Amino acid sequence: MRAKSFFQSEHDFIAWISRRTRQRAAGLTLGIGDDAALVNVPSGHELILTTDMSIEGVHFTLNRHPPRAVGHRALARSLSDIAAMGGTPRYALISLAASRRAGRGWVEGFFDGLLALARRFEVTLIGGDTAVVNGPCTADVILAGVVPRGQALRRSGARPGDRIFVSGRLGMAVRGLRLLTSRTRRPTPGEKSALRAHLFPQPQCALGRFLSRHRLATAMMDISDGLSIDLRRLCDASGVGASLAANRLPIPSLPDSAEALELALNGGEDYQLLFTVPASKVSQVPPRFHQVPLTCIGTTVAQNAIQLVTADGKTRTLKPQGYDHFARA
Amino acid sequence: MRAKSFFQSEHDFIAWISRRTRQRAAGLTLGIGDDAALVNVPSGHELILTTDMSIEGVHFTLNRHPPRAVGHRALARSLSDIAAMGGTPRYALISLAASRRAGRGWVEGFFDGLLALARRFEVTLIGGDTAVVNGPCTADVILAGVVPRGQALRRSGARPGDRIFVSGRLGMAVRGLRLLTSRTRRPTPGEKSALRAHLFPQPQCALGRFLSRHRLATAMMDISDGLSIDLRRLCDASGVGASLAANRLPIPSLPDSAEALELALNGGEDYQLLFTVPASKVSQVPPRFHQVPLTCIGTTVAQNAIQLVTADGKTRTLKPQGYDHFARA
Repeated sequence: MRAKSFFQSEHDFIAWISRRTRQRAAGLTLGIGDDAALVNVPSGHELILTTDMSIEGVHFTLNRHPPRAVGHRALARSLSDIAAMGGTPRYALISLAASRRAGRGWVEGFFDGLLALARRFEVTLIGGDTAVVNGPCTADVILAGVVPRGQALRRSGARPGDRIFVSGRLGMAVRGLRLLTSRTRRPTPGEKSALRAHLFPQPQCALGRFLSRHRLATAMMDISDGLSIDLRRLCDASGVGASLAANRLPIPSLPDSAEALELALNGGEDYQLLFTVPASKVSQVPPRFHQVPLTCIGTTVAQNAIQLVTADGKTRTLKPQGYDHFARA
Repeated sequence: MRAKSFFQSEHDFIAWISRRTRQRAAGLTLGIGDDAALVNVPSGHELILTTDMSIEGVHFTLNRHPPRAVGHRALARSLSDIAAMGGTPRYALISLAASRRAGRGWVEGFFDGLLALARRFEVTLIGGDTAVVNGPCTADVILAGVVPRGQALRRSGARPGDRIFVSGRLGMAVRGLRLLTSRTRRPTPGEKSALRAHLFPQPQCALGRFLSRHRLATAMMDISDGLSIDLRRLCDASGVGASLAANRLPIPSLPDSAEALELALNGGEDYQLLFTVPASKVSQVPPRFHQVPLTCIGTTVAQNAIQLVTADGKTRTLKPQGYDHFARA
C-alpha cells in the first residue's frame, strides 16, 4: 500500500488547524496550543459537557462518505446533545485518530466540514488530541455549552398525560444511508433530501433553546439511535409509558408506507428532538419552528409499555429496535 | 476467533458504570445517563478542559499491559495536563471504542484502574460514549478542572535567565516500557520501579497547584513526549532558548550512563512537570515536594537554541527527539 502524505509533525498540524480556527471567542482565555484550554462560564449559567465518537466502519466509511460530511456529522452529534439540553454550544475539542489509509487530504476535508458547521453555530475549537494509526479513523468530539441555571431540560421530567412531539421528519437519515450504500443512478429530489439528512444533519439547537426558555417541555432528548429505542429511554427516565399514533408520525415519503413507518420508528441518526409538553401548553407549540415541522405523535401514559396505535385502530407494543453498540457486539 | 462476552446492551453498561461511580460531587448537577452532563464552575474560577487519547498499538497493548494499568494511564495523561496548568481536576468523561477482541473483563479492568485513580484525585465520572469495534481499543479521556481566575500557568511565560526545573526522575517510564516488552526474568527492585513508572504514572497535580498558588513558576508544562521535544515546545511558546547541564538531569540508575541520559532526554510518558522559576524565587522551591525531588536542570537563554552542556564541559545542540505521532506516520 502506498504511504499517504501527512502532516510533517504535530507542530505542523497545530499550526495548520490554528490558522483555520478563530482564536477569540466570548469567555475564551486560552485555546489551542497549551497543555489544556481555559474558558469562563458566564455567571448564572451551568456548563453542559458531552462527547460523541464517530468511528470508521461504525458511523462512516472512507470510500462512501465525503470527509467533509464525516466532519460535519461528528460535530452534529454533539451539537444535538447540547440542543437536547436546551443549551447553547460554545467550545469544541477534537480527538482524532487518523488512519494511515486516510492521508492529509482526508484530515483536511474532515476539519473543513467540522469547522464550517462550528462557524454556523458560533462554536470555537479550543483543543484536542491527534494520532496516526494503522486501524480505522476514530474521531471523538467534545462539546462544552452553557445554559441558564435551572433551565436545562432532562429526559426525566415527563408526566403521564403529556403530549409527545418530534421535530422534523424521522427515518430520513437511515434512508439516506441505504441510498448511499446501494444507489446506482442519479438520485431523485426525494432521495437527495434523504442523502442530505444522512450526510449533513442539522442539529436543532435553536429549537431546544426556544423550548427551554419558554418552559414548554417537561422532558427532552435527541433522537440519535431511533425513535423506538430513544423514546424507551425517555419513558424509563421519566417513569412513564407512551401511546403513539402511527398515522401521526412524520415518516419519509415512500411508495411503501410500511417501510416508511419502519424507517421512522427504528432508523437512527436523525438528530431531531423528542420532547414532551403538558396538555395545557400544547397550544403554545408552533406547528413549525424556522421551517422545521413540530409534530405531536402521541401521549405519555402511566403504564410502563409503549403502544403503537396503527391506522386500522389496532394496538401493538413497540419494541426498542434502534442502534445499540453492545447489543450488536 | 471466539466471541468474547460483552455487556448485553448500552443500558446494561450504563447501569454497571453508574454503580461504580459516585453520583454526588461538588458542583455536579447532572451526571451519567442523560444527553449531556451539567456542572457548575465555582465563582472566581476558570474552567480547564483537556482531552487525551490512549490507543491500542500506540499507547498500550492488549497482551502486555494489564487493563487496570491501561485505565490508570489513560486518566493519568489528562490529570497531568490539569497539573501542568496548576489546576484541580474535577470531572471526567470517557469515550471508549472497545475492541471485540477485548471482551467484558478487559472493559471492567480498564474502568477499575481508571476509577481507582479518579477516586484518589476526587474526580467524578460524569459521562462519555461507548462502542464495540472490530479495530483496536481506543479510549479518549476528557477532563474538566478548575483554577482560580488568573492563576493558570502556561507554556509561554518563561523569560531569559529563568531556572529550568523538573519534578521526579526522567526516562523511567520508557525504561519500564522496554522492560515490559523484553524482560524474561524476575525484575530487580530498580526495574520494578521503572515498570511502575510506566504502568502507573503519578500525575503531579498537588505540585502544580503549589507552584501556581505561590506564583513560583513563570511557565509550566508536563513532560509527555520527552524532555527534548517538550522543552523545545515550552521554549518556542516563550520565545527563549535553554542551556541544560547534563550532569544535573535526574536520570535513571543504570550501569550505562550514556543510555540513562538518552532515556531521560528522549523518553516519553513520564508525566513529570517541567517549569521555569525566576532566579529571585529559586530559594523558595523546596528540594522535594511530598517525596518528589524538584531538580534545577538549567537556565533559559535569549538565543533560540537548546544547548546541552555535557560532563566533560562540551556543548552540543539538543535536537527534539521525543514522540511525535505525525513524524512517525
